[in-house]
Amino acid sequence: MDDDSRTKRWERRTEVPLGTASLLYLAAYAVHVLALGLSGAGQALCLAVLLAAWVLFALDYAVRWRLSGDGARFVRTHWLDTLVLLLPLLRPLRVVRVYEAVLHRRGRPRLTLHARVIVYAGLSVALLGFAGALAVYQQEHAEPGATIRTFGDAVWWTCATLATVGYGDVSPVTPLGRLVAVGLMACGLALLGAVTGSFSSWLLQVFSREEEPTRDGPGDSEGPPGK
Amino acid sequence: MDDDSRTKRWERRTEVPLGTASLLYLAAYAVHVLALGLSGAGQALCLAVLLAAWVLFALDYAVRWRLSGDGARFVRTHWLDTLVLLLPLLRPLRVVRVYEAVLHRRGRPRLTLHARVIVYAGLSVALLGFAGALAVYQQEHAEPGATIRTFGDAVWWTCATLATVGYGDVSPVTPLGRLVAVGLMACGLALLGAVTGSFSSWLLQVFSREEEPTRDGPGDSEGPPGK
Amino acid sequence: MDDDSRTKRWERRTEVPLGTASLLYLAAYAVHVLALGLSGAGQALCLAVLLAAWVLFALDYAVRWRLSGDGARFVRTHWLDTLVLLLPLLRPLRVVRVYEAVLHRRGRPRLTLHARVIVYAGLSVALLGFAGALAVYQQEHAEPGATIRTFGDAVWWTCATLATVGYGDVSPVTPLGRLVAVGLMACGLALLGAVTGSFSSWLLQVFSREEEPTRDGPGDSEGPPGK
Amino acid sequence: MDDDSRTKRWERRTEVPLGTASLLYLAAYAVHVLALGLSGAGQALCLAVLLAAWVLFALDYAVRWRLSGDGARFVRTHWLDTLVLLLPLLRPLRVVRVYEAVLHRRGRPRLTLHARVIVYAGLSVALLGFAGALAVYQQEHAEPGATIRTFGDAVWWTCATLATVGYGDVSPVTPLGRLVAVGLMACGLALLGAVTGSFSSWLLQVFSREEEPTRDGPGDSEGPPGK
Repeated sequence: MDDDSRTKRWERRTEVPLGTASLLYLAAYAVHVLALGLSGAGQALCLAVLLAAWVLFALDYAVRWRLSGDGARFVRTHWLDTLVLLLPLLRPLRVVRVYEAVLHRRGRPRLTLHARVIVYAGLSVALLGFAGALAVYQQEHAEPGATIRTFGDAVWWTCATLATVGYGDVSPVTPLGRLVAVGLMACGLALLGAVTGSFSSWLLQVFSREEEPTRDGPGDSEGPPGK
Repeated sequence: MDDDSRTKRWERRTEVPLGTASLLYLAAYAVHVLALGLSGAGQALCLAVLLAAWVLFALDYAVRWRLSGDGARFVRTHWLDTLVLLLPLLRPLRVVRVYEAVLHRRGRPRLTLHARVIVYAGLSVALLGFAGALAVYQQEHAEPGATIRTFGDAVWWTCATLATVGYGDVSPVTPLGRLVAVGLMACGLALLGAVTGSFSSWLLQVFSREEEPTRDGPGDSEGPPGK
Repeated sequence: MDDDSRTKRWERRTEVPLGTASLLYLAAYAVHVLALGLSGAGQALCLAVLLAAWVLFALDYAVRWRLSGDGARFVRTHWLDTLVLLLPLLRPLRVVRVYEAVLHRRGRPRLTLHARVIVYAGLSVALLGFAGALAVYQQEHAEPGATIRTFGDAVWWTCATLATVGYGDVSPVTPLGRLVAVGLMACGLALLGAVTGSFSSWLLQVFSREEEPTRDGPGDSEGPPGK
Repeated sequence: MDDDSRTKRWERRTEVPLGTASLLYLAAYAVHVLALGLSGAGQALCLAVLLAAWVLFALDYAVRWRLSGDGARFVRTHWLDTLVLLLPLLRPLRVVRVYEAVLHRRGRPRLTLHARVIVYAGLSVALLGFAGALAVYQQEHAEPGATIRTFGDAVWWTCATLATVGYGDVSPVTPLGRLVAVGLMACGLALLGAVTGSFSSWLLQVFSREEEPTRDGPGDSEGPPGK
């Protein structure tokens, strides 16, 4: 239990710096991809931020590995962390946890379960979609024969993909762009399933709660009974 | 509780006028968008109706804010009302509530939970889809290179989007049209999730209810036993 | 209860003839649409079968209305029957009920709830899809600029629509074809939601049932303990 | 029960050889389809492996039929096995079972129900998608007017189909290719429904479990209380 609490303390202390590093990573990647007219120094700065953030993530992974006391099992039991280390664009998803932790520290009451799933899944879809649109735009925009030519196209394509609508007016043509697209489909489907499922079960809950007052008793809607 | 009951009384009194104003708003917007050959006076009338309805919505929002007794918290706890105030095309969704209130006042028995979710979500999808088709048509029809050229195209595109089919034979090309499309995807997905979920759970319920009579006893299908 | 039992007796007696009439209706419609080289007499026979079947449906509707003893309320409480009377292509869905009744009469054990929902929804989707493909093909195949030119195209388009995949390589262009398409999307989504929901809950049930034997006791897989 | 245990013993003994044969079948089919420059001898070897594996499957089916002691009923009660015998490309799905059996034999703890459904459905989707992409590629790549010209296109199309996104930038044009596509849509939808459903219910479970510690008691996050 000592190891556990040390791991927990580590996680509590590092979550805000690591969350900030995640957002910096995403921002630096966005600038790197979108700011085509950036000078060489600007590009170098972006790459430096990307590298520094990634080193931070690797350090955090290493420290948590050592604190866990597990051997090679850690890689498998924490496969999500391992995957995020290899694909740091998924890192900003951690911000969702930081957001909750910050809310919690300020003593805010927790949201209801459904609201939390919707907020977290919505936030995750937004971050994931932004990262995916950046990655697809980077792969596609200079390709001959590509239909995704501006970042706006990439965002539009991402929305149509995450909603599983898939118009096909624009779509990736390069192998790497298509690989990102498949990842986006898989993650997006799972997260959207969570949003849709929670929303519909919340709707059902709301409707059944609305039904109760009419059974509780008369006079409720006529004004307070004197008390 | 006094505040609450005053809010409730306010809501009960305003729901029919506000519902009518919502439908007028939608109708005026539809005329404004679709009646291209309308004279200047007709267009001015439409805009006057749009503005008057919006002022009514804003007044209702202000009154409910004051009655609630909350300060700035009201904006956050009633974020849905705030959003609807800013995007009045979502307003007609309130008609769904009015419809229920009117049914209730006439002493009609409530529908079962599943039926209500299906009716409300279906009605909401229809109103939302109509408003969305109007907005997309307004943005797109005059754009060079657009594929949505008639209102029929816009309605067809809206249906394919709300069902997440997304043929892509027609699709928006302007940034604003695409923004509306993304909103339509998000709302539509959530509402369709509700419809699909309720329908399938209702189907399961029906099948399990149909199974019971065969267990209850024999002779049920042979005619009444003399009583 | 006397009225109820008379209605039930009527339904039991008419279900097989009406089911046969439904299938004849669908077959005659298919021949009417697909057999382009049919002689005038053949076409007249098809139309006669279509009309005769529809008159049967109308008679059944009238008898059940009278037996129910309800007045105008019948139209609303039996809105599904009313809709089916107006759109007789939906009629073959009744075959699903006949299929169950026949199985039941032969003393076959009922399928489990999940299996029944999957079988009925699957059968309904198949019948609905066939009728929809016929209707869309009839509207589209002679239209200039249409992409649905053969019945194979129409079936392929129907499958892509019912699965909400919607490639868009072929899609209807006429207003009536698109109206059928929207109905197909709505029905298909609901029925597919039922299939998907039942299948996934059945999967979960299977997995949880598979888990139990390993808990029940050892030796179960080593052979019978002597009994 | 003796028959049952003999069937079980048979299944336990054959699962690893049959699983290996399934993978060999899939591999031989992949080589047969993709290795266009293969010499005549190589092609003959592939066909021999395909035939040998299929004979093994048929033998297994026959033995299990005889062991079951059922007559013609076996074909109906084991319709999934019958279908797999006729469409051996579905055979590799059995590998999913072998994977579980191997894990079980090594004494590994079972995964939780949700994790198992996700892993099995994910694995099945991957195998099914690979087999489907191969079959579609074989039908389409040499067809004039086809848009699926490389195996990469076929895989990309398969992913877009299984996720029900359906861009339509590439899509099958031959009748057989479209038949495979429809099967892929049906199976993919069911399996994806299982993945999405389990993932979202797992998400809900995780969130509700995360909520409990905050109720259990204070001090949990402040360090161990001396024990």
